[in-house]
Amino acid sequence: MSSTFGTLFRVTTFGESHGKSVGAIVDGCPANLPLTEADIQPQLNRRRPGQNALTTPRDEADQVTILSGTENGVTLGTPIGLSVNNRDQRPGDYGDMSGVPRPSHADYTYLMKYGVKASSGGGRSSARETVSRVAAGAIAEKWLKMRFGDVSIVSYVSSVGKITAPEITAEGLTREQVDANLVRCPDAETAQKMIAAIEKARDEKDSLGGTLTCVCRGFPAGLGEPVFDKLEALLAQAMLSIPAVKGFEIGSGFAGTLMRGSQHNDAFVQKSGRLGTKTNYSGGIQGGISNGEPVVFRIAIKPVATIGQAQATVALDGHPVTLEAKGRHDPCVLPRAVPIVEAMAALVLADAALRQEYRV
Amino acid sequence: MSSTFGTLFRVTTFGESHGKSVGAIVDGCPANLPLTEADIQPQLNRRRPGQNALTTPRDEADQVTILSGTENGVTLGTPIGLSVNNRDQRPGDYGDMSGVPRPSHADYTYLMKYGVKASSGGGRSSARETVSRVAAGAIAEKWLKMRFGDVSIVSYVSSVGKITAPEITAEGLTREQVDANLVRCPDAETAQKMIAAIEKARDEKDSLGGTLTCVCRGFPAGLGEPVFDKLEALLAQAMLSIPAVKGFEIGSGFAGTLMRGSQHNDAFVQKSGRLGTKTNYSGGIQGGISNGEPVVFRIAIKPVATIGQAQATVALDGHPVTLEAKGRHDPCVLPRAVPIVEAMAALVLADAALRQEYRV
Amino acid sequence: MSSTFGTLFRVTTFGESHGKSVGAIVDGCPANLPLTEADIQPQLNRRRPGQNALTTPRDEADQVTILSGTENGVTLGTPIGLSVNNRDQRPGDYGDMSGVPRPSHADYTYLMKYGVKASSGGGRSSARETVSRVAAGAIAEKWLKMRFGDVSIVSYVSSVGKITAPEITAEGLTREQVDANLVRCPDAETAQKMIAAIEKARDEKDSLGGTLTCVCRGFPAGLGEPVFDKLEALLAQAMLSIPAVKGFEIGSGFAGTLMRGSQHNDAFVQKSGRLGTKTNYSGGIQGGISNGEPVVFRIAIKPVATIGQAQATVALDGHPVTLEAKGRHDPCVLPRAVPIVEAMAALVLADAALRQEYRV
Amino acid sequence: MSSTFGTLFRVTTFGESHGKSVGAIVDGCPANLPLTEADIQPQLNRRRPGQNALTTPRDEADQVTILSGTENGVTLGTPIGLSVNNRDQRPGDYGDMSGVPRPSHADYTYLMKYGVKASSGGGRSSARETVSRVAAGAIAEKWLKMRFGDVSIVSYVSSVGKITAPEITAEGLTREQVDANLVRCPDAETAQKMIAAIEKARDEKDSLGGTLTCVCRGFPAGLGEPVFDKLEALLAQAMLSIPAVKGFEIGSGFAGTLMRGSQHNDAFVQKSGRLGTKTNYSGGIQGGISNGEPVVFRIAIKPVATIGQAQATVALDGHPVTLEAKGRHDPCVLPRAVPIVEAMAALVLADAALRQEYRV
Repeated sequence: MSSTFGTLFRVTTFGESHGKSVGAIVDGCPANLPLTEADIQPQLNRRRPGQNALTTPRDEADQVTILSGTENGVTLGTPIGLSVNNRDQRPGDYGDMSGVPRPSHADYTYLMKYGVKASSGGGRSSARETVSRVAAGAIAEKWLKMRFGDVSIVSYVSSVGKITAPEITAEGLTREQVDANLVRCPDAETAQKMIAAIEKARDEKDSLGGTLTCVCRGFPAGLGEPVFDKLEALLAQAMLSIPAVKGFEIGSGFAGTLMRGSQHNDAFVQKSGRLGTKTNYSGGIQGGISNGEPVVFRIAIKPVATIGQAQATVALDGHPVTLEAKGRHDPCVLPRAVPIVEAMAALVLADAALRQEYRV
Repeated sequence: MSSTFGTLFRVTTFGESHGKSVGAIVDGCPANLPLTEADIQPQLNRRRPGQNALTTPRDEADQVTILSGTENGVTLGTPIGLSVNNRDQRPGDYGDMSGVPRPSHADYTYLMKYGVKASSGGGRSSARETVSRVAAGAIAEKWLKMRFGDVSIVSYVSSVGKITAPEITAEGLTREQVDANLVRCPDAETAQKMIAAIEKARDEKDSLGGTLTCVCRGFPAGLGEPVFDKLEALLAQAMLSIPAVKGFEIGSGFAGTLMRGSQHNDAFVQKSGRLGTKTNYSGGIQGGISNGEPVVFRIAIKPVATIGQAQATVALDGHPVTLEAKGRHDPCVLPRAVPIVEAMAALVLADAALRQEYRV
Repeated sequence: MSSTFGTLFRVTTFGESHGKSVGAIVDGCPANLPLTEADIQPQLNRRRPGQNALTTPRDEADQVTILSGTENGVTLGTPIGLSVNNRDQRPGDYGDMSGVPRPSHADYTYLMKYGVKASSGGGRSSARETVSRVAAGAIAEKWLKMRFGDVSIVSYVSSVGKITAPEITAEGLTREQVDANLVRCPDAETAQKMIAAIEKARDEKDSLGGTLTCVCRGFPAGLGEPVFDKLEALLAQAMLSIPAVKGFEIGSGFAGTLMRGSQHNDAFVQKSGRLGTKTNYSGGIQGGISNGEPVVFRIAIKPVATIGQAQATVALDGHPVTLEAKGRHDPCVLPRAVPIVEAMAALVLADAALRQEYRV
Repeated sequence: MSSTFGTLFRVTTFGESHGKSVGAIVDGCPANLPLTEADIQPQLNRRRPGQNALTTPRDEADQVTILSGTENGVTLGTPIGLSVNNRDQRPGDYGDMSGVPRPSHADYTYLMKYGVKASSGGGRSSARETVSRVAAGAIAEKWLKMRFGDVSIVSYVSSVGKITAPEITAEGLTREQVDANLVRCPDAETAQKMIAAIEKARDEKDSLGGTLTCVCRGFPAGLGEPVFDKLEALLAQAMLSIPAVKGFEIGSGFAGTLMRGSQHNDAFVQKSGRLGTKTNYSGGIQGGISNGEPVVFRIAIKPVATIGQAQATVALDGHPVTLEAKGRHDPCVLPRAVPIVEAMAALVLADAALRQEYRV
C-alpha cells in the first residue's frame, strides 16, 4: 500500500468506502495561506454522488472538517488533517456474493495481494477513496492561485463512448461553463447527445466510458524535475492512479504519432514578455519541464464495471456463477471524475512549483 | 532534477550526452544474483546508434563496466556502480546556434529552469541519458527471471506514422522475432512498409513517430501498491519519463472508452491452478495490482524533433531565425526505443515485486 | 514540515496541542494482523498526563479511535487512520505573552521558519504531538510480536539529574517492573531518590532532565540498511526527533571512547543455534545491521523548559521581559517519555524488518 | 541497502573497499555553482590514509574526477557524477581467515543479511566508503558558502581515550588551526598528549577511540523540518551512519541532563539585527529548527576494531580461533574522521537549506 503522493507538497490518504471516515494529511503546505473548509467544500460537492439523475442516488453530504494545521483561518505550515465522515454504509452492490470476485473490479487482486477479504471488496480501489484527493487538491489549488495569481485548472468531459466533443482549449474556459450541463461537456450540443447516450446505457443496465481533457493555464516555465519526475511523468502517474483510468496523453499524444516532425515541431514565437510557441503539440512541456504554454492532457476512463446485466463468471473456487448488480449505479462516472482530475493536477503542479530549483 | 527511480530496487543515473561518461547506481538489487557485464551488454547493443541504415551513423561502442557491487560474478547486495564512456563528443547538430532554442527540444525549458546553457542544449533531455536506464533495466530483468522463472518482457514497434501492425500479444513472442527486421516490428509485411516509410521521410529530411507495444508475461498476481503507486501508475510514470513519449495506455486504453461495460468486463475463468480472465481488457492489472494475466501497454512516441528541413523560429532575443540541422539524424527512433521501454518496465516490475506485501 | 517516518512501515502524523484532534495514518502495516483500539490504548495511557503526582495535572482521556484499515478486528493492508481528540484546550502556560518567545522552546524558531505565530507557540513542537507516535508505535509493536514471537522493547528511566540507576540490561525486564513506581526506574532504591529529587525541583519551581535506557530483545540478525539507513542511524534520527532529546548513544556509546580496542571488541561465542557475542559493547548492531544480541541504547533528555521561576529574557522587539509560568507543570517528563521511546523504537524495527533484503 | 541521503540535495554512493572505484552521484545541486575537482580534492586529502605517522601507511592518491553535471567549471543543475579509483587492493588484514568473522566488524552481520561473503568482509562497512561522502560534502559546502556567505563547518578531535581537550567553540576557529598538528586537536598541549597516547597504543598493538566536536557557524534561523526531519534528528542520522560512531549529542547533550531547567534555559538577548541567546545549551536548534546560533554537536567514535593483539573468538562453524591482524593499522581514526564529519554536516545543512519553507 502506498498512500502518499508528492515530495514537498505531500498528501497521505486513508479510508475505505465502508469505514468510519475517509481523509488525508496534507504536509508541506506553506504557512500563511488563508484556508477554511469553505475553500475545500465546492470541489467535494462537484465530486459527490447523488448530484443529479445521471449519477448514483447514494447521497452523502461529504462535509469536510479541518482537524489541524490552521488557526484563525490561515495555515501554520504544520500538517493539515482532513476528515470526511462516511454516512451511507450499505452492503455491497451484488448482495452476498463474497466468494465471487466481481469482473474488472479489484476484489480478486486485493485478495491475492493482502490475503484478506473486506466487505468492501477491493477496499481502497473504491471511488470513495478519491474524496481525500479532491479535498487535498483544493488546498493545492488555493496555494497555486496565491503563488502564481491568475492560474486555472479546468477539466471537462471530451467524449462519452463514441460521442466526441470538438476540442476546446481556448483561453477563458471556466468551471461554470463546464458545469452548465449535467454531463460537464462545455459544448452544449454534444452534451445533449452524451446525456441521451448515458440514459440509454442506464436503461439497458449497461455503462459507458469516455475521455476527459484537462487544461492548466497560467503556470510559469520551469516546473518539472527531469529525468524521472518530468512534469508529464508525474501527471501520468497521478492520472493512472485514479480508479478506472486506462490511458494518458499529453499534448498531441497518440494522434501526434501520425504527424511528421516538420508538422509537429512547435516553432518559437515572441509573445508578450516571453518566448512562446506557435502551436502547442508539446502540451506545454518540453524535456519534462513546463514551457509557459497551457499544459493540456487527456485521459481515458473505462466503462463502469458494475452493471445490472447478468454476467457469466466464476467463483473463487472455480464454479460458474451468474452475477447481476442490484439497485441503480452510475452508468458513467466521467462527470464526477472532473474534480478528481483537477485535484490530482493541482497536487502535481503545487509539488512541482515547490521543487523548482533554486539558483545560486 | 530527480534522477532516482524506485523504492526498493532503486536506480540513480548521471550523465549528459557530451560529458565524460554516463552511468548509474543500482541500489537494492538482492545479493547472490549472478551478474557480469555480459548480462547487460546485449540490451545496450540493441539501444546504441549506428546499428543499421535506419539509425543515426553516430557510432559508439557503449561498453558497460561494473564498478562495484559484485564479486566473483555475483551481486553482494551492495550498490552496483555502472559506467559507459562517451566517445563521440561532436558539436551540436545545428552548429553554432547557441542563442536559438531548437523547436520541440528542451533547450528553452532547461535554460528557464536552470539559468545556464549547456553545449548539449537540453542536457539530460538527450536520448543518451537512456543508456543508464537500459543498463540498470538489464539487471532488474535478470533478477526477475531468477525470482519468477520463465518471465518475459518484450516490446516491439506497433506503428510508424500511419502504418499500423496487427496486434500481436500471443504467447511466445520473442526478442529474436522482434529483431528479425530493422524496424523491430514482428509482422514482416508491415515491417517492410514501415522501413519504406522511414526511408522516404529520411530522404525528405523529415521524421516519423509511432507507437510501441510491450507485453510482460509470467508475473504473479499481487504486484503494485495502491493507491498512488498502482502498477499502471508507475508504468505510466516510467514510460512518460522516456524522451519523446507523449502517451501511455494500459490494456484497452483509449479504444476501451468506445466499449460498453458489458463488453469490456473481463469475466473470470478457471485456468491451470489459478483464476484467470477470459479477455484482458484490463491489461493484466485491476485496482492497481497485477492479476496474473499478461501486462500489456502501449506508448506514443512523437516524430523526432531534429530534422534537416528548414524551420522558421525565433532566437532567445526574439529575432526570426531559420534553423536547419546538419548531417544525418535518426528519422525514426522507435526501433532503438524498444530496449528502453523494456528496461523501464523491468525496473517497475522488479521494484513492485520487492515491495509486494508481507503477510502476518 | 516533514511528518512522515519510515520506508515501508510508514507513519504520517498530524495535530497541534490545541487543535481539534491529533492522529496518524499508518501505511504499510501488513494485512491480517489482529488489531483493535485495545491494542493501542495501554501505551497511550502510559504516556498521558495526569497519571500521578509527579506529572502535570492536565487530564485528557486520550482515547484512540481507528478510522479505517481494519475490519472484523484484523488489518486489511490498507492505511490505518488513527484519531485522538483534544479535550483540554487551555490558554498557554505563560498567559498573554504572545510577543515573548519562551526560552528554549520553539516559539522563536517556528516564527522564523513559518512566519506565523500560533496560539500554541511552537505548534508541532509540543509534547502532545507524540500521542500520534505512541499510537502508531503500538501497532508496529503488535506486528513485531506477531512476526518474531517473543520480542520485547522495554525502556526505563536510568537517571534523573545526578541520580543514576545501576545499569539494567538483564533478560526478563518487563514493563510491569518498570511501572512498579511513579518514576519508571526499575531499581526501587534509586527510584525513591529520583522521586524525592523531582518533588524537590517541583517545589522549587524548577525542572530536571535525565536519561532513558531502552533494551530491544529477541530480534534476528540482519535488520538495518547500510549505509545511510543503518539501524543505529535510524534509531538516532527517531530518538532525536522526540521533543527535548539532546543525545543518543548505542551500546558502549560515549563511555566506550574511554576503552581500548582490545577491551571493546565483542568476541564471538557459540550460542544456542547461532553465533553470539561474549560482550555487547556494540549494542546489538555491527556495520549498521543487527547481530541478534539485544539492541541497547540510551538517550539524554534536557530539563523541562517550562518553569515557574522568573526568567529574564527579551521580547521579539528586543525589550527586556521577565517570564514566569503560571500553574503547575511537569517538573520532569522522563517517566512519560518511556512509551514514546518504545514507540519510536518499534517503528524503526518494524520498518527495518519489512525492508530486510530478499535473497535470490 | 540504502545508499541515498537527502531529500532535495541528494547524494547516492557506491563502492566497496576493494572494487574498481568508489564514487557518488550528487543530484539536486543548484545550477550555476562554480565547481571543479579542485574544490573537492582538499577534503579528500584530509581524509585519505597515509598522511602521517599516526595513520595507516596504505597510500592512495584518491584523486576525484567529475564525470558529469558541470560545463566550463559551473554546475548545470544536472546530476554530478564523481569517481575515485581504488589503487591499493590488498588482501584483508587478517589474511586467509574467511571463515572467521572479525570481532566488532560487520563481516558476520553482512553475511547474515546478504548471505554472501565478500573478500572485503563487511563490504560497504569499510571506511573506504566514506570517500564518496567527503567528495559530495565538499560540493554541499561550496554551495552553502555561495548561498549564505561567510559560513563555516569546522570539526576537531576533542578527546582521545581519556585525554580530553578544553571545549573550544569560540568564533574564529579554522581548519588551518585544526590541522596544525597531526591529531587535529586545536589545543596544542592536549594534542601532544593525544599523540603520545596514540603512539603508545600503536606500539602495544592496540587502538583508541574518542570524541569529535563540530561547530557550524553563520547559518540562518529556520533550517530543519519538524517533526521527523528535525535538524538535530538528521544530523544524528548522518553521524551515526559513519562507521564506528556510537554516540551523538547536540548542545548540552548528556551533560545537560545534570542541569536544572533554570540553568539550562537559553534566555533570549538582542544581538545585532536579530534575536540571539545568551547561552547555547540548545546547540543552535530549538524544536528541530535552527535559531541562528552556532550549531554545535559531538560524536563518540569507538576504538578501532582491527588490532594486532591476539583475540580469542570463534569461527562461523563455532570452533575457537585466535585472530591477530597482520601489518600496521590505524590505531586511532579520529584525525581522519574530521573531514567526514564535516562532509555529513554539510550535506545535512545544504539539504535543510533547500527544503526551507516557502511562504505565501
